[in-house]
Amino acid sequence: MNVAVDRRTLTVGWPSGREHRFHVLWLRDNCPCGDCRHESGQRLLDTRSLPDDLELVGASVDGTVRVSFSDGHASSFDADWLLSFASPGAAVRRRRLWGAELQDELPTARFVDVAGGGAFLRDWLAAVDELGFAVLTGCGTERGTVTRVAELFGYVRETNYGRLFDVKTVVNPTNLAYTGLGLGAHTDNPYRDPVPTLQLLHCLASSADGGENTLVDGFRVAQDLPLEDFELLSGCAIVFRYSDAETELETETPVIVADVRGDVQSVHYNTRSAQAFRLPDDMVGEYYEAYQRFGRMLEAPEYRIQLKLAPGDLFIVDNLRVLHGRTGYTSSGGERHLQGCYADRDGLRSKLAVLSRG
Amino acid sequence: MNVAVDRRTLTVGWPSGREHRFHVLWLRDNCPCGDCRHESGQRLLDTRSLPDDLELVGASVDGTVRVSFSDGHASSFDADWLLSFASPGAAVRRRRLWGAELQDELPTARFVDVAGGGAFLRDWLAAVDELGFAVLTGCGTERGTVTRVAELFGYVRETNYGRLFDVKTVVNPTNLAYTGLGLGAHTDNPYRDPVPTLQLLHCLASSADGGENTLVDGFRVAQDLPLEDFELLSGCAIVFRYSDAETELETETPVIVADVRGDVQSVHYNTRSAQAFRLPDDMVGEYYEAYQRFGRMLEAPEYRIQLKLAPGDLFIVDNLRVLHGRTGYTSSGGERHLQGCYADRDGLRSKLAVLSRG
Repeated sequence: MNVAVDRRTLTVGWPSGREHRFHVLWLRDNCPCGDCRHESGQRLLDTRSLPDDLELVGASVDGTVRVSFSDGHASSFDADWLLSFASPGAAVRRRRLWGAELQDELPTARFVDVAGGGAFLRDWLAAVDELGFAVLTGCGTERGTVTRVAELFGYVRETNYGRLFDVKTVVNPTNLAYTGLGLGAHTDNPYRDPVPTLQLLHCLASSADGGENTLVDGFRVAQDLPLEDFELLSGCAIVFRYSDAETELETETPVIVADVRGDVQSVHYNTRSAQAFRLPDDMVGEYYEAYQRFGRMLEAPEYRIQLKLAPGDLFIVDNLRVLHGRTGYTSSGGERHLQGCYADRDGLRSKLAVLSRG
Repeated sequence: MNVAVDRRTLTVGWPSGREHRFHVLWLRDNCPCGDCRHESGQRLLDTRSLPDDLELVGASVDGTVRVSFSDGHASSFDADWLLSFASPGAAVRRRRLWGAELQDELPTARFVDVAGGGAFLRDWLAAVDELGFAVLTGCGTERGTVTRVAELFGYVRETNYGRLFDVKTVVNPTNLAYTGLGLGAHTDNPYRDPVPTLQLLHCLASSADGGENTLVDGFRVAQDLPLEDFELLSGCAIVFRYSDAETELETETPVIVADVRGDVQSVHYNTRSAQAFRLPDDMVGEYYEAYQRFGRMLEAPEYRIQLKLAPGDLFIVDNLRVLHGRTGYTSSGGERHLQGCYADRDGLRSKLAVLSRG
């Protein structure tokens, strides 16, 4: 290993031949000493206080890399930590895109195992993180169980629908989810800000005909879209809206939200709550072409899996990625009753990270 | 008013001379009849089912615009509703950017008024929607009040910090917010996904010296940034992280998130939880230039207002827009005790919209 400095740059060469240049402000800002960094890992140093004309005045290496600065400060960096920044690109996401082939290997665990925590809970949460959904069986049919499952890893997101909500046929539905109609693949509550990032649905009764749940990986479908469709759906915002006597929710978002690298970050698709598009009139035709292609791919058998939930079964979806729908059912042949709740990804990923430690 | 059709386009001319062209699929998709649209306002028609080769076969106008389609369907549209889509651009946001001049007209209301609902609550919420913050006085000093205030308009977002959290000097702080140090302007919890969109802080005691709260409109500062800085801060994602014995949260986001029009959608700035930037080495220097300029502008007197909270005072901020900080304090001269909680914008905007009806 070798190091070289000029006024503003530290160049580190590793035995592998890899070389990386570190900027003086980056180094000073990331000093790990007890004056600059709290034991909690939070930065004590306010980055804003660093002088713009800071310079490097020396460097040495002996397993740790030591540098000294023109403000009189000295820092020691772990060489392996520095090396981790010499690799191109960002940390790899544990994201596996899927289609209908996943029907044969549905990520499923038993409530009794997962509720015990430890490796069972970790593996179930890891499936949600990687695939965007997972199934839990043997949850029983006690009302309120769905929020207990959410609390195994995080926090319920209460909304105007309550801490939990019932999905069954009712006489005067204000929301189509509560009628017996089939529902095409959709994400929930795109009219909310922020959109709930997780949804859980727990089956209490299912003697009605039909009413099977369908799931599709929206990230996979977005990736398979022709580029010009992807650009239209990620480049134009549309409005989603929900309104009843006590509620009025409206949010504007593209159907596909891409991050700064152009990777899909979230998908918002819901034909029930989408409002009339407000687009330049010469764009409406091509936008509909992209929107229809995406919507139909979301229903295509090669992307879709199906779940016939039995009483006591529950599934969780990443609501920014995996769309869900259901086939139609009638209550004349029986009843179908689900309870659902919303939660958020930060709690899930935190629990997964903590359970994965050591 | 006059209408003309060709196979795929309805052209409407208004008395003002304005003319707009409506695409056949847009019209069919937005048919307001009872077969296509549920009384709740949700679309019954699944857009995906519309034939790609749908055509217009006729149109007439007599206050309402009537069109008939090649699939046999006929629709009637309110002419004023159609006109609203003939205006360029999106609906105007009630967003007023501000700087230090707002010190003289802080949006403030009394708890006793706002808790009564109606116009007082509406106006207080409207200030949060427009300015990104508001103050509430006379809340008393009962613990737990902060969540009661959140429940006046929405729902508490529970996190690993609890439904509410205490901010005061403690002996073994795991988070810098709980020490007596000053804190530069920051947004809360950028390491969370989704980031809490609202934060409330309620003052229970404030006999310590210092500890004044500072607020700055991050959207205003972002708007005043040189364009090349704006592009760097909105074009590169950085990682924020928080970790303790039971929690591990990490999220990647640009410091400035722009929407598809290039307008600022959110700001995430927190020097404590920002992780070492992972950028191409030839970009680090210019990124720091932009990051430092933005960070220092957030502390500049011309952008900043200051609140000296008395016991019983509370403030709420839009945590994606308004940054907060505080001057340092010591507990030797007294104590300072705040309680805080998180909530979300959808509940607030829904309550505001409902209170603004009719």
